[in-house]
Amino acid sequence: VVFSLFQNPSHDGAMTEIPVTDRTRIHRLPERQRTDARELHAILDTAYVAQVAFVRDGLPVVIPFSFARDGDSILIHGSSGGGIFLASPGGVDVAVGVTHLDGLVFARSLFDSSMNYRSAVIVGAARPVPNEEKEEALRVISEHLMPGRWDEVRPMTKRELAATTVLRVPLAEASVKVRDHSASEAADDGEDHRVWAGVVPLALVAGAAERSPMTAVDVALPPSVARFS
Amino acid sequence: VVFSLFQNPSHDGAMTEIPVTDRTRIHRLPERQRTDARELHAILDTAYVAQVAFVRDGLPVVIPFSFARDGDSILIHGSSGGGIFLASPGGVDVAVGVTHLDGLVFARSLFDSSMNYRSAVIVGAARPVPNEEKEEALRVISEHLMPGRWDEVRPMTKRELAATTVLRVPLAEASVKVRDHSASEAADDGEDHRVWAGVVPLALVAGAAERSPMTAVDVALPPSVARFS
Repeated sequence: VVFSLFQNPSHDGAMTEIPVTDRTRIHRLPERQRTDARELHAILDTAYVAQVAFVRDGLPVVIPFSFARDGDSILIHGSSGGGIFLASPGGVDVAVGVTHLDGLVFARSLFDSSMNYRSAVIVGAARPVPNEEKEEALRVISEHLMPGRWDEVRPMTKRELAATTVLRVPLAEASVKVRDHSASEAADDGEDHRVWAGVVPLALVAGAAERSPMTAVDVALPPSVARFS
Repeated sequence: VVFSLFQNPSHDGAMTEIPVTDRTRIHRLPERQRTDARELHAILDTAYVAQVAFVRDGLPVVIPFSFARDGDSILIHGSSGGGIFLASPGGVDVAVGVTHLDGLVFARSLFDSSMNYRSAVIVGAARPVPNEEKEEALRVISEHLMPGRWDEVRPMTKRELAATTVLRVPLAEASVKVRDHSASEAADDGEDHRVWAGVVPLALVAGAAERSPMTAVDVALPPSVARFS
């Protein structure tokens, strides 16, 4: 079952065009750079995991996190005891990579073979969300990752809120790169056109929900889970 | 169609246990750290894309690349004109993140909700593969990404080889983190057990192959593509 990817239209941002800066200009295959903020939003709104890179002791670190877009920023959450979340209030510089792999592109040469993808990289300072905004930020993350679940379970406790830190990274600097077409080819490209060329599409899909050992068989699938069926 | 993920047994490494170092020790949920090299190899051998982080001008950068494992190292390739590939012969420090998202874990609280995943982060110096080893390195990458394709298309030209750089990163320092079970629960956890808990599995799957506009309809699917059917 290929599930429809979720959207969160109530959190659409005000940004319409992504400015291209020295840090976000794409030099390799620049024709693949996109600057429409709606494309950036669509990449983020249909992804679960971001790879968050930062610098520690002069060396690169990369850690996967779940995340959500909140208007013109993204929210990353983790344990208050976690490394990156001991960020100074001034923020920690991060580069956040989110990539959807959409297909394998079989060209008639290995050199022209490729992948179809939609990729975003956001650079900027990750700053802790103030305590008074934390619960709402976690609701936004929850509604992105598991729409509807927030209202199906009990509220978060004060202790749980205290044990969770949320960082916010603005979308002010982001590069979006997309390849979304068939194998590159031309009548006069010198390749053997009797060799098959084309695309094998790839997508993340959901399987049948698996209840936990302690979930009784007469407990119905809630809407947040049934949507994948 | 859920395709069987590929393996490349002819390139199994000699490493059996991954040493845990200061850079690769997992502090948050350390029970999820794995040190069996076979688990690391399986994560890498079934992935197409790695997020490669490095430091430029003191700031973090992250870029997605296709890659392949070659024994006890990974190979990353790109254009010889590309930024990271202008690496000094001494190497550039990278952190390479590869994550498979295997499921959404619906617990009876948001705090205990989670994801199932298999994640690897490799840290080390990325060094250019010498020219005389480049073609073989590209063959290993090709056999990983598109098994069998190498023999279905023409050989790479000298010009194409010159335009491609391959970097090698040893697997000497890597952290592997895995969550692969149902929602955390216990009879005395104080949660409402009439709330459904469990897992929605997720997997990357292949759709039907799409021939390019210039591929004649009587050109049969080659084995490298037919394996997805």
